[in-house]
Amino acid sequence: MTTAANAVADEAVLTERKARFSEFVQDFQIRLCTALEALEDEAGPPLYAGPAGRFERTPWRRGDGDEDLGGGIGAVLKGRLFEKAGVHFSEVYGEFSPEFRTQIPGAEEDPRFWAAGVSVIIHPLNPRMPAAHMNVRMVSTTRTWFGGGGDLTPVLDYQRKSDYPDAEAFHGRYRAACEAHDPDYYPRFKAWCDEYFHLAHRDEPRGVGGIFYDHHATDDWEADFAFTRDVAEAFLDAYPAIAAKRMIESWSEDEREEQLIRRGRYVEFNLLYDRGTLFGLKTGGNVATILSSMPPVVKWP
Amino acid sequence: MTTAANAVADEAVLTERKARFSEFVQDFQIRLCTALEALEDEAGPPLYAGPAGRFERTPWRRGDGDEDLGGGIGAVLKGRLFEKAGVHFSEVYGEFSPEFRTQIPGAEEDPRFWAAGVSVIIHPLNPRMPAAHMNVRMVSTTRTWFGGGGDLTPVLDYQRKSDYPDAEAFHGRYRAACEAHDPDYYPRFKAWCDEYFHLAHRDEPRGVGGIFYDHHATDDWEADFAFTRDVAEAFLDAYPAIAAKRMIESWSEDEREEQLIRRGRYVEFNLLYDRGTLFGLKTGGNVATILSSMPPVVKWP
Repeated sequence: MTTAANAVADEAVLTERKARFSEFVQDFQIRLCTALEALEDEAGPPLYAGPAGRFERTPWRRGDGDEDLGGGIGAVLKGRLFEKAGVHFSEVYGEFSPEFRTQIPGAEEDPRFWAAGVSVIIHPLNPRMPAAHMNVRMVSTTRTWFGGGGDLTPVLDYQRKSDYPDAEAFHGRYRAACEAHDPDYYPRFKAWCDEYFHLAHRDEPRGVGGIFYDHHATDDWEADFAFTRDVAEAFLDAYPAIAAKRMIESWSEDEREEQLIRRGRYVEFNLLYDRGTLFGLKTGGNVATILSSMPPVVKWP
Repeated sequence: MTTAANAVADEAVLTERKARFSEFVQDFQIRLCTALEALEDEAGPPLYAGPAGRFERTPWRRGDGDEDLGGGIGAVLKGRLFEKAGVHFSEVYGEFSPEFRTQIPGAEEDPRFWAAGVSVIIHPLNPRMPAAHMNVRMVSTTRTWFGGGGDLTPVLDYQRKSDYPDAEAFHGRYRAACEAHDPDYYPRFKAWCDEYFHLAHRDEPRGVGGIFYDHHATDDWEADFAFTRDVAEAFLDAYPAIAAKRMIESWSEDEREEQLIRRGRYVEFNLLYDRGTLFGLKTGGNVATILSSMPPVVKWP
């Protein structure tokens, strides 16, 4: 085969991989939304008032419409159990601006990029239920890689310990997902998560961690895709189970207050440190979608 | 006189100037707190419940106590009229760390610095009353300059216009303060304020502006000090008068909601853009004092 033929074949393989990843995250968005809506159905009086919440799906396109730059579907639920939950799918493409080309692997040679992913953020009403975050993404420039992770943020001090059952369950499920692929993944990606979700100005962690990884590309794309799928699946297994267990516990006004103050730390993290948030805001991303991660009510007393 | 004698004389002049500025801002802190407490006294049922608020003064020292690095007095009021107000005096000194020496005028030759100031942030309970911010500071490295300004943040859309009476009163008072010193100051410092208090990611202003200036040093320190005093005095004249006028207006739940959402933009500004906040957090400043600027209750619905 000629090099040109190889290039065409490689291009076809990459196109198929993008499509498979995009299909996975779109399907995952639907399945996670369904699981969270089922919990909304289960919740009810006396602890939870009002109707069961449903996700509202809002498609959006990037740019001013002159060019096809991709877009996504934001899904936001404001419910009786989940005060605010966002499950966002996006698939975007185009060219990085000159200032970003040097910051993104493989973009210096050719500024074109493609990126797809699903990102999840959940802020329950009940302070006994931990907040949670999950994201998986595939990015392609002249190189292709995966990134993502999941992490848990209990808001009550007594739950913010690695030996609290929710933290153990969450980590246990992520450990299993990692170990099915590589014995090194869990310790490496757990440490990366702890390092990433750290509030330097307060010298305190955002929550009890989980896993975090980025620029992940072994020489086996299928294996990396399978791992990234499992990272998403681990969240779908672990979080609704923890939520179901805690949602039946009633809470005090003091606990609600502790939650609202703890959420302030979450805001501080997202606006001071979170690379995705800052990158999105500085590159003209969809502000409503990016900041849908913000907790619904917050206190800095 | 010898050069050495000149240096000693210059040093004595600078020491006296620092003392005079420090005395001014400490006295100003007390006078502004008194003015805001008087409004707390005036407020009462049916619009305002509970006792009149009083400022709690908390002295703090910078560093771990091994060295004298200065400190300050934080004054925070959580009242019935002012949901949260902070009026902070600080006078700090020491040496800039290597990474900051290149960023601060005059610090490259000699890393020693001295800085004093008072900073004010007011979040009223009543959404009809605008939030407000004011700060004046004197900084001395191998050079000496002033900075500061005052700006108004009405939280209800219909008040966020330059021809709304509160904006006109606030700007009018600042225009007068500026024009008493230099006809160029008001247009320059007003434009600087508009540029500084702009949320790029939303392409919207924080409020209705005011004035902002920095690295201000003409060849006449006395004149610059007098101007900076007037910037503080203008706030003490203008803000309590606006507050007194609006505090008697009752408000709706929708207006309170609008206020809480608008406060989210305030948080976004402080954590994404405000140089003082970011500088303070990254240089190990007092987190509680720095973030006392955060609104007490905020919503991102």
